[in-house]
Amino acid sequence: MQRTSRMLTPQEALDIILAHVQRLPSEEVGLMDAAGRVLAEPLYAPEDHPPFPAATMDGYAVIHDDTSPWREVIGEQFAGHVTDVTVTPGTAVRITTGAPLPAGADAVVPVEDVELVDDHIVIRREEVRPGENVRPVGADVHRGELIVPAGTVLGPAEIGLAASLGIASVPVSRRPRVSVLSTGDELVDPGQPLGPGQIRDSNRFMLVAALQQAGAEVVWAGRGPDDVERLTELLRERIAESDVVISSGGVSVGERDLISAALRTLGTVHIERLFMKPGKPFHFVTVGRTLLFGLPGNPVSALVGFEIFVMAALRAMTGQQPVIPEPVTVVLAHPIEPGDRIEYQRAIVWCDETGTLFARNTGPQSSARLLSAVGANAYLIVPPRAEPYRPGERLRAILRRPVHGQAR
Amino acid sequence: MQRTSRMLTPQEALDIILAHVQRLPSEEVGLMDAAGRVLAEPLYAPEDHPPFPAATMDGYAVIHDDTSPWREVIGEQFAGHVTDVTVTPGTAVRITTGAPLPAGADAVVPVEDVELVDDHIVIRREEVRPGENVRPVGADVHRGELIVPAGTVLGPAEIGLAASLGIASVPVSRRPRVSVLSTGDELVDPGQPLGPGQIRDSNRFMLVAALQQAGAEVVWAGRGPDDVERLTELLRERIAESDVVISSGGVSVGERDLISAALRTLGTVHIERLFMKPGKPFHFVTVGRTLLFGLPGNPVSALVGFEIFVMAALRAMTGQQPVIPEPVTVVLAHPIEPGDRIEYQRAIVWCDETGTLFARNTGPQSSARLLSAVGANAYLIVPPRAEPYRPGERLRAILRRPVHGQAR
Repeated sequence: MQRTSRMLTPQEALDIILAHVQRLPSEEVGLMDAAGRVLAEPLYAPEDHPPFPAATMDGYAVIHDDTSPWREVIGEQFAGHVTDVTVTPGTAVRITTGAPLPAGADAVVPVEDVELVDDHIVIRREEVRPGENVRPVGADVHRGELIVPAGTVLGPAEIGLAASLGIASVPVSRRPRVSVLSTGDELVDPGQPLGPGQIRDSNRFMLVAALQQAGAEVVWAGRGPDDVERLTELLRERIAESDVVISSGGVSVGERDLISAALRTLGTVHIERLFMKPGKPFHFVTVGRTLLFGLPGNPVSALVGFEIFVMAALRAMTGQQPVIPEPVTVVLAHPIEPGDRIEYQRAIVWCDETGTLFARNTGPQSSARLLSAVGANAYLIVPPRAEPYRPGERLRAILRRPVHGQAR
Repeated sequence: MQRTSRMLTPQEALDIILAHVQRLPSEEVGLMDAAGRVLAEPLYAPEDHPPFPAATMDGYAVIHDDTSPWREVIGEQFAGHVTDVTVTPGTAVRITTGAPLPAGADAVVPVEDVELVDDHIVIRREEVRPGENVRPVGADVHRGELIVPAGTVLGPAEIGLAASLGIASVPVSRRPRVSVLSTGDELVDPGQPLGPGQIRDSNRFMLVAALQQAGAEVVWAGRGPDDVERLTELLRERIAESDVVISSGGVSVGERDLISAALRTLGTVHIERLFMKPGKPFHFVTVGRTLLFGLPGNPVSALVGFEIFVMAALRAMTGQQPVIPEPVTVVLAHPIEPGDRIEYQRAIVWCDETGTLFARNTGPQSSARLLSAVGANAYLIVPPRAEPYRPGERLRAILRRPVHGQAR
């Protein structure tokens, strides 16, 4: 097999991949099923919030410029219990936080500014301002206002806001349907005994976990057969049922290149190799609307390939914004040895007491050592250069988990 | 109802809550179901990785100090295809990346340093180092080594690593069983018409989404009845089936305090009010091992109460580390007006090109305005003080979503 194609930079590869992504159709889901889904269309407020002028304090609803020395309490207004009462000069209505302002009233005087004598109140201050302690109609949200932009991953705040405006279901992008297959004659499932020269199939489990966390629907996960014709047949079935097919293994020069051969037969090969480490062998192929990613067999390479490239495709498919989150800048806490390709070192990024992000890598960065990704919350992007990067120099990093402060 | 208790700071409240948390039992789950679960016991490597000395390059397996001028190629070794061949002086075996080193050999010479003539190779360099291009047994992970600490939320790297070491299932903490109820006579479900003085029930949907994203099992979600006896009865049932019961509404002074009354009857009240905004009215009650959280009815107050206090309890129950992630330090991008209690302002935190975290709030911070939490990736902690915080001053922030860099 010939490998004459130029090695692409990660950015060039992302551009090629995103140029081939097509948006998935949208579907309507109820709010109880909307968490973690990507909003397909912008949400606008169908009604005002609050829907009525509401008290923001416990107190008495009054007319602000009523000059009466004392006022008769003619009723009570609780949240959810509206009474048919109108405040006129010389009267007031007891009201609790959140309850609708009764007709006629234009202000709420807090309990603590009032003296209650029998069924009358005396206001113990000079002036009551119009609208005081009243949330007017639409104070929080105006009818027609954009409340959640398309591309937002829906969380509790967005879902609560939709509910508060009477929206019972929302349009979200369909979850991407993904098939995962691992290849390699040497693979044995965990739980089975290892024969001579055999290793565990770890990528299938790793990629399924990554897809679950990314909100994709794993429609199939299995081992690829050991024969190019049967493998091609399996892939054909998977392509028909999937938006994305991910394989691992079979793309290195030294490996039996069943996957490369099968992919070549099936579709258009756009990418074969990347100018990055780990993850140099990397296939990106399209067959109609289906995207195929041939990840390397080395688990760290497969993980990085998934998190940088497949994730970008999944985000673009569902319309998630931003498609490619902007990397952060970090200060190196120790020297970093560059390689001859762009390295994505597994790293820990934290925030110091001045608000500056610092990074250290997770030790030996062998692309077979998955332990280097355990506990890592970032990929440190290390461009090639002659001399080592010194502590205090700045590099960019892609955050894969939250950043914390330093314990005090 | 009397409110004589002192208002607690958020830190005091967290200390009280965590002192009442009991760890949930653990259960064994297969790797395909382990994503997002909390590891209950540390994982140690049951075997070495790699399990055999493996080639890291495509090339020829040789004896490093063999002085033969050329060597006969006596076999091939591919990953997963082990041949019964022994390298002796004057011989070599063709080998591919990841394949086991054949008996007798102690180094791999890469293809590009070798000239192949018929069935013999000539090494085109002076010296071959022992162990060159060979990953020895246990190079990545030693048998018995700690590979994933207890309390880790399992992601793709941890699951892949477990699989690579033959671990088929892992002990994880049982998911917390949680019941959610909203209370308030004024509440109407989204999708139903609003009557006079009525508002939507948004907290139930918001809290269910938050629980789903936190990995809890929502065993029940509904509306509380409007009568203290029936409410107490419902709560009793929910307590029996739940590790955590969360209510919203009915804890403010002005509201009909059904929840307060019911909680008081059922268990021990530890917290009633907090010195914070939003979220001052906040009940924490225990009944046996079950934790009850009485959140305010205002949606922003309920969300903040959930994310700061309930989340800490859920993390502690499952043994997740850290129980309370350390806040980050941020630089203010604009003036911030403090209040008379500790404020948790909804904010956007980003990283500038020097690696410094900056923050701005999301506009009006009314605790009824859930829009202030949409798109917010942080809570900015604003302690009370007389004068406003100036741009450039530093405060602490709790990150609730990832931080991004600035687009260039």
